[in-house]
Formats: sequence, structure tokens, C-alpha cells
Amino acid sequence: MRSILRAFALAAVIASAAGTSELRAQTDPLASWNDGVTKKAIVDFVHATTTRGSASYVAAEDRIATFDQDGTLWVEHPMYTQLVYCLNRVPALVKAHPELATVEPFKTVLSGNRDAIAKLSKPDLEKILAATLTGMSIEQFQADVKQWIATATDARWKRRYTELTYEPMLELLEYLRANGYKTYIVTGGGQDFVRVYSQEVYGIPPEQVVGTAGGIKYSYDANGKPVLTKEPKLLLNDDNAGKPEGIHLMIGRRPIGAFGNSDGDRQMLEYTKAGAGTRLAMLVLHDDAEREYAYGPANGLPATKVGAFSQSLYDEARKNGWVVISMKNDWSRIFAGAGVAKKTGGK
Amino acid sequence: MRSILRAFALAAVIASAAGTSELRAQTDPLASWNDGVTKKAIVDFVHATTTRGSASYVAAEDRIATFDQDGTLWVEHPMYTQLVYCLNRVPALVKAHPELATVEPFKTVLSGNRDAIAKLSKPDLEKILAATLTGMSIEQFQADVKQWIATATDARWKRRYTELTYEPMLELLEYLRANGYKTYIVTGGGQDFVRVYSQEVYGIPPEQVVGTAGGIKYSYDANGKPVLTKEPKLLLNDDNAGKPEGIHLMIGRRPIGAFGNSDGDRQMLEYTKAGAGTRLAMLVLHDDAEREYAYGPANGLPATKVGAFSQSLYDEARKNGWVVISMKNDWSRIFAGAGVAKKTGGK
Repeated sequence: MRSILRAFALAAVIASAAGTSELRAQTDPLASWNDGVTKKAIVDFVHATTTRGSASYVAAEDRIATFDQDGTLWVEHPMYTQLVYCLNRVPALVKAHPELATVEPFKTVLSGNRDAIAKLSKPDLEKILAATLTGMSIEQFQADVKQWIATATDARWKRRYTELTYEPMLELLEYLRANGYKTYIVTGGGQDFVRVYSQEVYGIPPEQVVGTAGGIKYSYDANGKPVLTKEPKLLLNDDNAGKPEGIHLMIGRRPIGAFGNSDGDRQMLEYTKAGAGTRLAMLVLHDDAEREYAYGPANGLPATKVGAFSQSLYDEARKNGWVVISMKNDWSRIFAGAGVAKKTGGK
Repeated sequence: MRSILRAFALAAVIASAAGTSELRAQTDPLASWNDGVTKKAIVDFVHATTTRGSASYVAAEDRIATFDQDGTLWVEHPMYTQLVYCLNRVPALVKAHPELATVEPFKTVLSGNRDAIAKLSKPDLEKILAATLTGMSIEQFQADVKQWIATATDARWKRRYTELTYEPMLELLEYLRANGYKTYIVTGGGQDFVRVYSQEVYGIPPEQVVGTAGGIKYSYDANGKPVLTKEPKLLLNDDNAGKPEGIHLMIGRRPIGAFGNSDGDRQMLEYTKAGAGTRLAMLVLHDDAEREYAYGPANGLPATKVGAFSQSLYDEARKNGWVVISMKNDWSRIFAGAGVAKKTGGK
């Protein structure tokens, strides 16, 4: 009797420490997904591809699932996180190179004028990206990103960016991994940037992050020690057609499932669906102005500079059986909050 | 009694089917390595990096080991296997493009004159590589390689190339995997080429093969179906400094152990050893003219066009504590033969 009481007490302590997310996961691995066709599509897909003896069975080693990051796994609006990082790095950059203080676009960024910053052109932004993402050693870059991501907060929610990951998508990542899938991020964002936090935030190890990648130069420092330096040279533009190209380069297998939210993910989803057998292609539609954002013409909403989900993509999705996820209708909860994603290691 | 007899009979049948290698592996995972400092260096390294509580302990997710292929995992002499493939493809190429029959270097290859072929210049060889490795879809290329590798044989041993893998190195791959290491191939050879057979031959899945890689182009065929085409454009020259650069691009972690056999592996070994903590860097020295080949100035032997292991590399190895493997003295057996490598899946 006493031991039973102790077991109950212990269970309560564990439940309290683990938080609600862990408890829900024990009953429904997709607890933040409302019941309906979208959730059913996921469960049916996993069932079809993992049931031995079924015609749609996929061998464990071929179970590859690829996820876009910005707008698919976490908030990308009004500006994707890596770009915020680059803008935030400008003061340190100018400190090291004072001559840049009077040179555009750095001058505008230093002014802090939000309207002017929002109006910077694509070539201007590319100058800022090149100046803040290259020229340093890999170790230095990783240390800078690690420090920034641990403290920087989003302007609207006043929360760290890593807390603005979507709980339903984290559940989906984990559900797929629990069913033998190897989960990858395939992002238009910087590969080196995302790899710094992918394990902690998504349970995805660095070697399973495919992203836009620049040249890397091997040389020796003054003590003869090898050093890898980030070069201002584009090696892989991992967006649009670059996504399937990057998948072939870095993984060498065609995904069985692919998940995105914008026209930049179109070719990855096409490539995935074009493989033989059962495949799942999903698009996150941002249609929840209250809990997150609403944007994209496919929903009769204004297009934005980031992540526009065009009518033509919407039409292609409908025609080819891609599943469109309505944040508003399909998700009972949006954000993961702190620490939720840390529950598992990656697979 | 009867059941005991049957058990013995069964054991004999299993032993016969599995071959000697399987049986030895049950007692010593490195059975083809002679006792001595080289074998001890491997065992000590694994023990040091996998013993919990030890100062040299390495977390499982950081246990990355990278292996050169040609001359390290299988025979590269007198010509590396992929080059043989390319030369063998020339007749099919000329059949599809008859105008090449009278154009050099294709004319020389078609002549079958071995001396003339051996004298082809590097630019000539590059023309042959480009013509036979690019321009087709990924699927077509994979099918061609798969068919060739299943049947083509080495001129000296009259055995398939996949049977000319080194048994001690396959044992080493497996020993590392059994101790939580993720094994990668990092080859100057073509990434797409090696990925076709890496799982079957080495137990290494395609996503763990880093190699020289060309551009890939995403487009649509006449039916609107996505197709990836191999382009005659060099993306990553995975040799020399390109090896650590490729490791960063494709893995994103510094290896704990690295294994090579030529000056093309120098930077990979330097990069590996420059990391903190216990590291293992090893070089296979080809000094066994009888059982395999002897070449390389470090052994007082003539340099060859492939895999030359220079005196300066030898000196660097000695200075920095890299372990030089003498095929002649350290290996009791050289070749794996048929089917030996297929015993495990990759990790």
C-alpha cells in the first residue's frame, strides 16, 4: 500500500516537472492538431508507410522527411529571424570597420529608423547579409549566433525566437521520428545559422540541416592551426529549384514527406510527390491574424515580402493532392514556448 | 543428445555459410589486424572516447569518423575505379554521339591501346569524366553505375571491385559503428558514384557519403515530371583543402577520427587532429607489393599518379602523432572478398 502511494506521488512529481506537453504526448502525439482531414492525412500517411506488408510500406532507411523552417516551423513575419540577426550585427560590424558608418545601407541600419530599414532593397539586404555572415571563422560565427539566439526577442511577443516555434509542427517532427523517419530542415536560410540551434530547438542534428550555403576556405592561423573561414561566395541557394538540388547534394535520397509554406517550397514538394508510392506534401497557410499572422493571396490576403503563398501555388496544391494546413482551423495551439522542443534527441 | 548433435551440425552449416570472417568477428572485432602499436592505437582511441566519466569521453552525437575511399577502403591502383568506369562508358557515349569517334581523347580510349590510355593528360581525363558523368538524369546515372559495378572486374585479380575492399578497414568501420560512431566516406571521387554502392559495400548510407560533386539542375520532362540532371559544373572538389571544406558543408561537425592514404587526405587529418580532446588520424601505407601494391616515396617506393603518399606527409604524420598503417605488417588479411561487408546496416 505504501509503495503504491509512493508511486502515485512520484508520478505527480514527474508530471509536474515534465509539463503539460509531455503528458498530452502520451495520449495523442499530435495533441495540438484539431481533428479533421488535415490531421487524418498525417496519421494515414504514417500508417501507410510504416505498416509492414502493406503495398505502401517504406523501408526505414528511406523514411526521409524535409521541413522548410521560416514560416513552417517558426514565425517568419514581419522579417525572418536570420535577417534580424544580421541587422542586429551591424553595430558590431561598424565598430570593427568604422568607415562603414557613413556608407549605405549600413548608415540606414544604424539610424534605427524602422520605416527606412523596412524599405531597404534586395541588393542592400544582400550587402548586409554578406557583411555580417561572412569573413569570420566558423567558430566565431557559431559563438555569435549562439549568444544572440539565447537572448534576442521578437518585437510583438517579447519572447525569444526559439519560443515562437509552432507546437503542432514540433509534434509532427517528433511523431515522424517516433515512426522511424529521419527529419531534415531544408531552408532558404543560412545552413550555418540554423545548425547552431537545430538540435536544441527542433531535435534535428546539424548534419540534417540543408540550407543556403556559402563557400568555406581552409587555411592556417598564425600558429599553424587549421581554420575554416566563411567566404562571401554563394555555393548553394537553397530556395525554389535549389531545394531539390540541395536535397540531392546533401541527402542523396528523395523525401517521402515534405513540408513548406511558400512558393520557395514549391519544387521541393513537387519533387517529393513525383516519387513512386505514398508521399505526403503539406503547406502551412498563415490565415490566423489573431494568434499569429495572416498573409498570402491564396487566402485572399495581401502578399508580403516574406513567404508569399501565391494563388498559383495554392492551385497546384489542390490539383496534386498536397494538403494545406490552416493555422486557424487545424491548430488548437500555435506556439511551443520555452523548452518544449528539448524533449528528444534528433533522429 | 540428439538435439546437441543437431546444434553442432547447424553450427557447422552456419560457419560454412558465413565464412571465416563472421566467426572471427565474434571473438575479435579487429581480427584481421595483427597485434601491435597500430591496432592498439585504434582500441585505445575507442576506449578513451567511449568510456563514460573519462576526461576524453565524447558524446555519442559527436562521434564522427571520416574515411577516404580510394586506397583507404579499396584498391586504387593502377587506376581508381571510377576512372575505369568512365573509360568503360566511352563506347556507349560514342554510340550516342558518333561524331566523338574521331575526336581525342575519345579516339584513343576507343583504340583500346593501354599504353596510350595510360598516357592521357589530366585535361584529357577531365574531358572523359565530364562526358561520362554528366548530362544525364540522376536516375539514369545511378542505374548505369549499379549495372557496371555488379559485373566489372579488376584486371589483376579478376574479381569485382567491390570484392577488393580491405577487410581490416571494413572491420574498423564496423568496430567504430558498434561503439556509437557515425561513419562517413569523404572521397575525392564522385559523390553520386560512391553513393550507389556505399550501403551495400561499406554499410554507409548515401547521406553519409561526401565526395566531389557537380551541379544539379532541376527541370521538368516532356510530361511535366520533375527531373534532376547532372551538370558539367564543379560544385565541390572534395580533395585536399576541399575535404575539410566538404566536411563542414555536408556534416557540420569536426570529425573525431579520420582515415586516409594520400596527400589528398592531409588537410582532413590536420583538421581532425586540431580539434580538442582525443583524436585519431591514420594513414594507410601501401607497402605490400606481393599481396596488393607498394607505392609512395615515404616508403622509398616510386610515386604513382594515384594516391602518392609523399615524404612531407610522412614527416607531418610522425610529427603530429598520426598513425601510419603498414599493410604489410599490420594486416593479416587484405581483401574482404564477396559479401563480407553486407553484414550490417550503416549507422
